[in-house]
Amino acid sequence: MGSGSDGVKTRSIRGVNVYGAYKGNTMTPWKNSRNEGREGDAVDKSKAKHWIDMPNDFRDEKTPDDWIPRDGRMVRLTGRHPFNSETPVDEMNKEGFFTPPNLHIIRNHGAVPQLKWETHKLSIGGPLVANSFELSMDQLTKDFPQTEFPVTISCCGNRRKEMNMIKQTIGFNWGIGAVATCIYRGVLLRDLLIHAGLDPSDTAGRFVEFIGTEDLPNKAGDVGPFPDEPWGEKCKYGTSIPLEKAMSMADEVMIAFQCNGDRLHPDRGYPCRLIIPGYIGGRMIKWLSKINVLPHETHNHYHYWDNKYLPPQITAERAAREGWWYKQEYIINELSLNSVITYPNHGESLPVNEYIDSTLTLRGYAHAGGGRPVTRVEISTTKGEWWDLAEIHRTEKPNPYGKTWCWVMWSFELDCANLQDEIWVRAWDTSNSPQPENPVWTLMGQSSNHLFRVKVSVNKPENGVAAYKFEHPTQPGQQSGGWATRTAEKVASAGYGPIDFEE
Amino acid sequence: MGSGSDGVKTRSIRGVNVYGAYKGNTMTPWKNSRNEGREGDAVDKSKAKHWIDMPNDFRDEKTPDDWIPRDGRMVRLTGRHPFNSETPVDEMNKEGFFTPPNLHIIRNHGAVPQLKWETHKLSIGGPLVANSFELSMDQLTKDFPQTEFPVTISCCGNRRKEMNMIKQTIGFNWGIGAVATCIYRGVLLRDLLIHAGLDPSDTAGRFVEFIGTEDLPNKAGDVGPFPDEPWGEKCKYGTSIPLEKAMSMADEVMIAFQCNGDRLHPDRGYPCRLIIPGYIGGRMIKWLSKINVLPHETHNHYHYWDNKYLPPQITAERAAREGWWYKQEYIINELSLNSVITYPNHGESLPVNEYIDSTLTLRGYAHAGGGRPVTRVEISTTKGEWWDLAEIHRTEKPNPYGKTWCWVMWSFELDCANLQDEIWVRAWDTSNSPQPENPVWTLMGQSSNHLFRVKVSVNKPENGVAAYKFEHPTQPGQQSGGWATRTAEKVASAGYGPIDFEE
Repeated sequence: MGSGSDGVKTRSIRGVNVYGAYKGNTMTPWKNSRNEGREGDAVDKSKAKHWIDMPNDFRDEKTPDDWIPRDGRMVRLTGRHPFNSETPVDEMNKEGFFTPPNLHIIRNHGAVPQLKWETHKLSIGGPLVANSFELSMDQLTKDFPQTEFPVTISCCGNRRKEMNMIKQTIGFNWGIGAVATCIYRGVLLRDLLIHAGLDPSDTAGRFVEFIGTEDLPNKAGDVGPFPDEPWGEKCKYGTSIPLEKAMSMADEVMIAFQCNGDRLHPDRGYPCRLIIPGYIGGRMIKWLSKINVLPHETHNHYHYWDNKYLPPQITAERAAREGWWYKQEYIINELSLNSVITYPNHGESLPVNEYIDSTLTLRGYAHAGGGRPVTRVEISTTKGEWWDLAEIHRTEKPNPYGKTWCWVMWSFELDCANLQDEIWVRAWDTSNSPQPENPVWTLMGQSSNHLFRVKVSVNKPENGVAAYKFEHPTQPGQQSGGWATRTAEKVASAGYGPIDFEE
Repeated sequence: MGSGSDGVKTRSIRGVNVYGAYKGNTMTPWKNSRNEGREGDAVDKSKAKHWIDMPNDFRDEKTPDDWIPRDGRMVRLTGRHPFNSETPVDEMNKEGFFTPPNLHIIRNHGAVPQLKWETHKLSIGGPLVANSFELSMDQLTKDFPQTEFPVTISCCGNRRKEMNMIKQTIGFNWGIGAVATCIYRGVLLRDLLIHAGLDPSDTAGRFVEFIGTEDLPNKAGDVGPFPDEPWGEKCKYGTSIPLEKAMSMADEVMIAFQCNGDRLHPDRGYPCRLIIPGYIGGRMIKWLSKINVLPHETHNHYHYWDNKYLPPQITAERAAREGWWYKQEYIINELSLNSVITYPNHGESLPVNEYIDSTLTLRGYAHAGGGRPVTRVEISTTKGEWWDLAEIHRTEKPNPYGKTWCWVMWSFELDCANLQDEIWVRAWDTSNSPQPENPVWTLMGQSSNHLFRVKVSVNKPENGVAAYKFEHPTQPGQQSGGWATRTAEKVASAGYGPIDFEE
């Protein structure tokens, strides 16, 4: 069974007085306050890479984005334009905890705004702000205390292709590479709001709205549900969060202007963007231009018509007709608990002779949302009958309030005698619940976080040597391959079911 | 399929402008601040019952608790003493959202301390408190602003008997009645701490410790892992939480002295107790006597040696030998997402003739933890192949920060044509994840929250009329009955598995 009967990596725990040893390398909160020592303690920043010298990609010629340097290794998912792309899994395996910014997942709804550091303004206002003001980028970066820490950002469409294999959603085919981790530097939103005269102890029933720069299509058409905000054909991308969350020192909501020590890449929101650690990427507004404090949630179209985990009964037509986009139950804010196997990658082939009496080191990532630390990563080679604990490599220390914002890398020494049929992985977080076993289909194909399964078979490759062959459920975009793409092996889906969708 | 193809209760949503209608009855946060209008807005308090005139129970004669009035309807789980008891399911069905205090789950480790209002003191101190002080109950109730709101309290051992049917844990047989909801009145911990000179904006790396009054056995023996706290044979029950949480207005941690308008029942912590909304009952210290602010988590024995969700590999011997009790990953603080069917109750018998062409109203409760609202309750009559949405009855409004502390009652109109084999229920919360399908066994049998299954069969009862017969998985304590108690029908347990436990 996995790495033997012990199965559990004990991380240098010896004797009775384990607590001291345990404290050093895992989940005990920091004692440093935000502005002292955090950088150095958190992670070895010197390992983070920069985007400046990235390889060129010529695919953007004759698109509105032809001025943007991009890494040719990125996996493009929506043709040439707009740029929606994910990290290749082999690069993930090379890089580990820190993702180079040029290999970071990008989700763009349209053309990238051409903003300039010298002219961009960030306004802080709204009906509940007595002292509205506007900041230049120089003011933002010079007039307020700065903070810097690593954050994992994931599109909540990560692993959507697996859901699309059950039934097509209205979203495109993300593989497992729509998640990445960099170090962000910026100003805490809290400090800006206090500067605007808001009281951190008077937050009840108030919200902070964030508005970007892009002009995007308003998919709702010409009638929106909010009489005070009649929409035209175009609107900005926006969202809102409770003022309480914006003011929370523990939640560390940040207006970021640096990534891994460089200014933000144009695709990543240059010159400034919102970082809401623990939330989905879709709420972290890029090219941020307006912050408003309101007595209600934002009425922004994209706050409602995107990032929803609707029940599987709900089709696009029914969602629009019956008002499902505005139901608060189904909004996705926090990132879902998730984990995948990145090594062996899809298509990996390993000689049986070499491994049969040995172990294979499985590797992957796992993350939770909402600041909840990942507490377990488990591997099953018995289709869920038995699970062994993988070793979690904790690069990030929890913040002084016990919250974590980053993925963890994990590894597991698999006894190859157990290498048969399938390898499953699942994670747990501090809410004491594992990832769901089965997918629950949903119209937008988001929060796809059922347990990840890699199929193993013994093949006879071209050179005549028998090899273990590894097969992931899918490959990103229109790439072929993956066991879930074969009709006969589709996942039995709890919540989807063999039922007619009535309209 | 369930209540027809629609399946979904739409809660008075009409036309396009659904948001206005939707706001009124579900998840939009309050605009009232803590001290204005909360009581009336939250719930109709007049429906809450009192414990004063409860029926007598003579089972406490000749125990240390013979002075305590108790309700004879409670289901006792650990013999006559100590008093560990749960609400009968039929009473749950009668009472609904508010549990009468005399029918509220009780978890007592030993004899109930005989404390008096006039002499009990609550001290606030510790190394980080400049202005230590001690409060009489009159001072506590007169010198600070008060707040009052409903909270669901659950022992995290709720549904443990289902886990015990897989393999015996080290805990006793809770059924599904170890959860209940009352209205608590008290003082916010935040206000006491500010009075003690603590700064709500200086909380990093600090903890608040809570100590009760009981003298309990120290199960760790004579060597504890903390050199600064050598333990004797007895210790007090205690825990700690981050100071940030204690100071959070959103989290509303309370020192309570009233339940449903009465002083606390002796079993419930009279004269004062800790209420940490969204946490498990085991952290809400009863008979509270000391509050200490520390630069580290508490070293209290019971903070570590109880309320742990250890992996299934870990036996009692191994847990002690290898220091598992002190691993932070496995601590249970927040209540787990859970839901059960309370009607039909176990053993319910309904005439087929009467129901076959009609519907049956299923009912039950669902709750999450950590303030996360329950977002879906779903019913399956197809063993998880398809799920329909149940109607959620929201008695509690979210607090001004969007958090909810209470269970919800739910109902579902089941088309009896679909009444065959099994009825399953599962809930979801705002973390966008459903309850796990399968149980994951654990040494203490806590956080037992896999989906709840009721078996249905058609029987011919004594009067000759065919009847639907309903069977829950277990019955509490040593009561017989329940499909999970029959060896042949034990749950296939993900994470438990048919493996030898090596020692």
